[in-house]
Amino acid sequence: MDAAVLVRADTAVASTQLPSPYLLFMGDVVEPGFAKTALGLRDWAGERCVGELALPGARVSTGLPAMTPAAAVAAGARAMVIGVASPGGAIPASWLPALQEALAAGLDLISGMHSRLGDMPGLAAAAERHGRRLHDVRTPPADLSVGSGLKRAGKRLLTVGTDCALGKKYTALALARAFAARGVDATFRATGQTGILIAGAGVPIDAVVADFVAGAAERLSPAAAPDHWDVIEGQGSLFHPSYAAVSLGLLHGSQPDVFVVCHDPTRIGMLGVEATALPSIAAVIAQTVALGRVTNPAIRCVGVSLNTGALDAAAASAAIAATAAETGLPVADPIRGGTAFDALVEACLA
Amino acid sequence: MDAAVLVRADTAVASTQLPSPYLLFMGDVVEPGFAKTALGLRDWAGERCVGELALPGARVSTGLPAMTPAAAVAAGARAMVIGVASPGGAIPASWLPALQEALAAGLDLISGMHSRLGDMPGLAAAAERHGRRLHDVRTPPADLSVGSGLKRAGKRLLTVGTDCALGKKYTALALARAFAARGVDATFRATGQTGILIAGAGVPIDAVVADFVAGAAERLSPAAAPDHWDVIEGQGSLFHPSYAAVSLGLLHGSQPDVFVVCHDPTRIGMLGVEATALPSIAAVIAQTVALGRVTNPAIRCVGVSLNTGALDAAAASAAIAATAAETGLPVADPIRGGTAFDALVEACLA
Repeated sequence: MDAAVLVRADTAVASTQLPSPYLLFMGDVVEPGFAKTALGLRDWAGERCVGELALPGARVSTGLPAMTPAAAVAAGARAMVIGVASPGGAIPASWLPALQEALAAGLDLISGMHSRLGDMPGLAAAAERHGRRLHDVRTPPADLSVGSGLKRAGKRLLTVGTDCALGKKYTALALARAFAARGVDATFRATGQTGILIAGAGVPIDAVVADFVAGAAERLSPAAAPDHWDVIEGQGSLFHPSYAAVSLGLLHGSQPDVFVVCHDPTRIGMLGVEATALPSIAAVIAQTVALGRVTNPAIRCVGVSLNTGALDAAAASAAIAATAAETGLPVADPIRGGTAFDALVEACLA
Repeated sequence: MDAAVLVRADTAVASTQLPSPYLLFMGDVVEPGFAKTALGLRDWAGERCVGELALPGARVSTGLPAMTPAAAVAAGARAMVIGVASPGGAIPASWLPALQEALAAGLDLISGMHSRLGDMPGLAAAAERHGRRLHDVRTPPADLSVGSGLKRAGKRLLTVGTDCALGKKYTALALARAFAARGVDATFRATGQTGILIAGAGVPIDAVVADFVAGAAERLSPAAAPDHWDVIEGQGSLFHPSYAAVSLGLLHGSQPDVFVVCHDPTRIGMLGVEATALPSIAAVIAQTVALGRVTNPAIRCVGVSLNTGALDAAAASAAIAATAAETGLPVADPIRGGTAFDALVEACLA
């Protein structure tokens, strides 16, 4: 137990850089829904993924080359990432031999799962034996402090939502790419486990002690050059009865100059509390401005990101037009991609 | 180290009842400001305090009888509470013999300090040897869950603030007493370490992981009889750039029917971030209603508690009159006491 504790303390490094390139571990996954992490890494951090390792029975692939841990090391990999979820969030015992093999081959292990790597029997000892480290990206840094509220140099964009799980990470990633395509210096700042794996750094903001949420957000997005943009992954919703505390601390610590509201026009009730109606986009804008002014009096909304994944093309177009008319703001559709985010980037730079 | 860890996990029971009566440990305190916990316990939980134990050099007394741990046990005490703070929040080594003596005499130890009792050399082992427990009231329960947002039976009052540290605990305690004096069944619900020691139970809400703040507040104030009042100690301020996340999670989980705004008319800048101006009482009322509606659409403000400790009697009267005129609400002055809270209780029951 002591060894595991020590490794855990050692690996509370989510705000510093994770080792990469990655070998993606696919386990024995059969449902694409359980492989979101691996697929997200392929889509958003493909340049840092050398291949995948699947167990017999797996039926989902990223399309990256199949590799043993030893071959991945030879190809430059420095860590194996658990790219799949298991029902319940625990690490199955059937994965253990492959995890041990990766450590023996010279790879660190990185996990965004609820279960900690060091709690798996023998894994902490194996890491120590092979001189490798176990990185649990859901473990926040141990030395956080309370927020200062002081203004920092640089520009900041935060994605906020009418609810949880409707595209805040995706929108932030797409916006960071759109900034880069315009030649604007921009950094994606991750606040959840998948985002942290994609960025290779970040803070799992919902796992931070409440007193330190704003302070953690301040550290996540430090002072930068005046024309640099941090594009910060939002979490939860100010209107969600379970998670609003996370959203507010992140808003205050991020002190965003601009924000984008993420919304799913087909969602009626809030995730996990379906009896609670989703707030309107207008209500989210008003509340975000009212609360965001505490740390950035100039905060403004630059547009909406509409997740139309559940609509056909005609219904999506109609929803986008209706939202644009209702809000008077640029509306992007991350699902249908293309140049949809250019108008939002224009609005940020205006 | 394992023993300390086990004791710590065992004693994450701040939401269940702490053992009492208490012997109050005064250390070698010379400044009344460092003895706030002991003095608060004497004032608000005097019936559960049998005496005090001071070290040579102490110059502050609660006025309770001086007792050795053995005498306190004979008088019915079940725990010794560390009633004083030390500069820096650590437990001085000079206190250790007295803490050991208390354990040997058959008392549990209770601390609200930042340092954990189990981290003091030898204390965990001594507790185990004597069959006693170490209670760190800053350690939240280990089995919290996210908030459900579901409406619970019973009535709830939350104290909120224009800032931190201006009377939210004191106001909640005074209101709970005023309810009781009216024959209304009411319970004070504590969210900070001193409040938890006074109530003998509670949840240290600012030490809870951000995802679980609303859930912790729901657990703190469970379903009750329809005419029962929970009077919940507020924390921080929705407008404080460091701590608003705590305040919002507590508001959502508490789903208060009514709230009282606590304010200090002499304070200009916010605690710890003096460059940030205090919000107006009207702004706090509007924002608390707007956000509180998420879990209680009927939320309303019943009045103001004005901390006039820094004013003379004439200036205090003027401030109270001005605030009453400005808000159109009953205004109580907890410092000057008396029947000041009766009007607030009337407004709650209206």
